[in-house]
Amino acid sequence: MEDISYMRLAIQLAKQGCGWVNPNPMVGAVIVKEGNIIGQGYHKKYGELHAERIALASCGTSAEGATLYVTLEPCCHHGRTPPCTEAIIESGITRVVVGSADPNPLVAGKGIEMLRSHGIEVIENTAKDECDKLNESFFHYIQSKTPYVIMKYAMTMDGKIATHTGKSQWITGPEARHRVHEDRHRYTAIMVGVGTVLADQPLLTCRLENSKNPLRIVCDTHLRTPLDAKIVTTSNIASTLIATAVTEAERHKPYLDAGCEIMVLPQKDNHIDLNGLMRKLGERQIDSLLLEGGSTLNWSALKSGIVNKIQAYIAPKMFGGRGKSPVEGLGVTHPDGAFLLNKPVITQVGEDILVESEVIPCLQES
Amino acid sequence: MEDISYMRLAIQLAKQGCGWVNPNPMVGAVIVKEGNIIGQGYHKKYGELHAERIALASCGTSAEGATLYVTLEPCCHHGRTPPCTEAIIESGITRVVVGSADPNPLVAGKGIEMLRSHGIEVIENTAKDECDKLNESFFHYIQSKTPYVIMKYAMTMDGKIATHTGKSQWITGPEARHRVHEDRHRYTAIMVGVGTVLADQPLLTCRLENSKNPLRIVCDTHLRTPLDAKIVTTSNIASTLIATAVTEAERHKPYLDAGCEIMVLPQKDNHIDLNGLMRKLGERQIDSLLLEGGSTLNWSALKSGIVNKIQAYIAPKMFGGRGKSPVEGLGVTHPDGAFLLNKPVITQVGEDILVESEVIPCLQES
Repeated sequence: MEDISYMRLAIQLAKQGCGWVNPNPMVGAVIVKEGNIIGQGYHKKYGELHAERIALASCGTSAEGATLYVTLEPCCHHGRTPPCTEAIIESGITRVVVGSADPNPLVAGKGIEMLRSHGIEVIENTAKDECDKLNESFFHYIQSKTPYVIMKYAMTMDGKIATHTGKSQWITGPEARHRVHEDRHRYTAIMVGVGTVLADQPLLTCRLENSKNPLRIVCDTHLRTPLDAKIVTTSNIASTLIATAVTEAERHKPYLDAGCEIMVLPQKDNHIDLNGLMRKLGERQIDSLLLEGGSTLNWSALKSGIVNKIQAYIAPKMFGGRGKSPVEGLGVTHPDGAFLLNKPVITQVGEDILVESEVIPCLQES
Repeated sequence: MEDISYMRLAIQLAKQGCGWVNPNPMVGAVIVKEGNIIGQGYHKKYGELHAERIALASCGTSAEGATLYVTLEPCCHHGRTPPCTEAIIESGITRVVVGSADPNPLVAGKGIEMLRSHGIEVIENTAKDECDKLNESFFHYIQSKTPYVIMKYAMTMDGKIATHTGKSQWITGPEARHRVHEDRHRYTAIMVGVGTVLADQPLLTCRLENSKNPLRIVCDTHLRTPLDAKIVTTSNIASTLIATAVTEAERHKPYLDAGCEIMVLPQKDNHIDLNGLMRKLGERQIDSLLLEGGSTLNWSALKSGIVNKIQAYIAPKMFGGRGKSPVEGLGVTHPDGAFLLNKPVITQVGEDILVESEVIPCLQES
C-alpha cells in the first residue's frame, strides 16, 4: 500500500471522533512496519489521549523503525495531555507522514521541526485536502477564537424555504434531513432567531443514536421567547442559551428558573451584536455553530460577517408564489454588492442536492 | 475502435446541425469498412439531405459490406426527402448500428424492421442515452405536436433573480451567459411576458457568430407592449410574435405595421391560454421554446403544464432582501402540492452551476 492509502485509513479513523472531540480537531493515526499495520488509533474525546499516543499504545510489537501516518501535525506543547512528539521520538519511529499542518499558533510547524531535529524523516501534505476538510471548523476556530459558522437551509429549485402560506414540512427528503442531524451532532452549537422559535417551535436536538445535542442558542434581542416554547421546556435534556439585549434581571429570572442560560449583549441596528456573541462563544470553546435561520437572522449574520460557509439543500421541486427565501432582511441594492462565495461543492443527498460554498470574506462594515 | 466510439463520433457530427435542423432531429452518421472510416455526414439543415445519405455520398470507395453508425433510427417514409432505408439497402451495407429509436409514429421501429427484412444486421441502443439527450426536444415535439419548453433562469444561492431594487445585471458570469446564447441558437423560439419587456427592454436575440435568432414571443394578454420597445423596433432583424387576448383589429394594426405578428388566443384566468398557444406554435413547426421568464409568466407556464424542463443557473453569491424569485404568481399552498422534478443533472459553467431537471408531468388542472 502507498502512503496515501494509509493516510486515508487514518482519515477514516479520525472521523470516528466526530462530534466528541470539539473544540479539539479530529485526528487519526496508523503505524506501519515492514508493510504491516502494527497500530492505529484516533482522538476519541476532548481531554482524552491524542491519536498518536493511542496508536502507539495499540502496537503489539515495537514501533522501532516504523512509519507513523497522522492526519494532523503532532503537537509539541503541553496541553491537557503531554506533547505527542515526545512519545513518537521515544518510540523509535523513523518516518512520519503528515496530512494537515497544524495552524494552532502553539504548534504551527514546531512539531515537525522537533521530529526532524531528532533525525526522523517527515513527509508533509499527504492527502492534505482531505485532511484539511476534516477540520475546517477547528482551523477557523484556533486562529480566530470564534466559532466556524455554517448557514444551513433547505429550499426548492425556485428558491423558497416555505410556501406562501408559511408551510415548510417537508422540502427535502429523509436523507437530507438525516444529514442535518449528523451535523447537529458534529457541531458544538446550533442557532436560530426568535422568529423561528415563535413560528416553528423547533426542538433543535439531534435525533440520532449515540449522538450529542448541540448547545441551542436563540437570538432574542427583545426577549420574546415564550416560556412554554419547547426550546425552554426541554432545557433539562439539552442546554439552551438565550442571547438578548434585555438587561433587566427580573425579565431574565423566569428563563433562568426554567433552566436556560441568558447571555446579555449590546444592541446594534436593533439586533444583538452578533460579532460580540461569536467572541463570547469562542471564549467558552464553542468552536462551531450551525445556523438554522430564519431569513432575518440569516441576513444579520451574513451582513455582520460571521458566516463562514453556506450549506444549501436544494430539493427538485417548485413552489411558486411569494414564499420566504433563505436570506431576506434588507439585502444588497446592486448585484455588484453581493456577498460572494467560493466555487461550490455539490453532493447528491437522496433526491436532493447539497451545495456547499465558503463565504469569501469582504470588508463590508458589520 | 469499438461500436461506441464510432457512435460518439457520429454524435459529434450530429451536433454540428444544432439550431439549423429544427424541427427535424440532429443526426450524425459514420460508415466503417474493414476498420477504416470511409464516409461520414450529418443532417445540416431542415429540408436538406439526411445524415445517412450524406455519409453514403461522401464514401470514396464502395460501402458494400460496411457498417453504418447512425445516431437515430433511419427513416423509411417519404418526407421532404426519400427514405434513408432505401439508400442503405442499395449501398450494400451489411450492418447498421443505431443509437436512439425514432419515436416519430411514421418511423417507430419500421426503419429497423425494413433493414432486417433485407438481411442487414441491426444493433440497437448503442450509446442510447447520449443519442436521446441530443434530441430531447424533437422526441417531445414529434409525439405531442407542441414545443419542448425549457424554463431558464439565473438566480443567486439564496434564490433571487434580482436585488430588492430590481437589478439583475449580472447574476451569472460570462460563461453562463454565453451558454444561454447557444441555447437561443439551438431552440426555435424564445418567450417572455410583457412584464419583462416593460422592465428590462430585452432584445432576446442570439449574439453568437454563425447563429440564428429564435422567434421572439411576447405573452401580452392586454397588449401593453410599447411600440417603441426594442423587441418591436427590431422586428426587421428577428421575428416577433405577440400573443394576446385582445381581438380588436385596430389595436393590432400598429404592431403589424411595425413588422410584428399578432396571434390571438382565448383568455383563461386573466392570462392567454398557454396550452392553446403551444398547440398553435406546434402547428407551425415550433419544436422547442426557451422560456426566459419573468416570475409571473413562469408560474402560469408551470401551472398550465407546458414546462418540460427547468434550467436553473445558480451563481455562488447572496443578495438577501425581498428580491424577486424565479417563479412567483399564486404558488402552491402546501409542500405536498409542489411541482416535482426529476433527479437534477449538474454542470459547472464557469463560476456558476447549471442545474437541469425535467418536470414530472402531473394531473393538476391547467
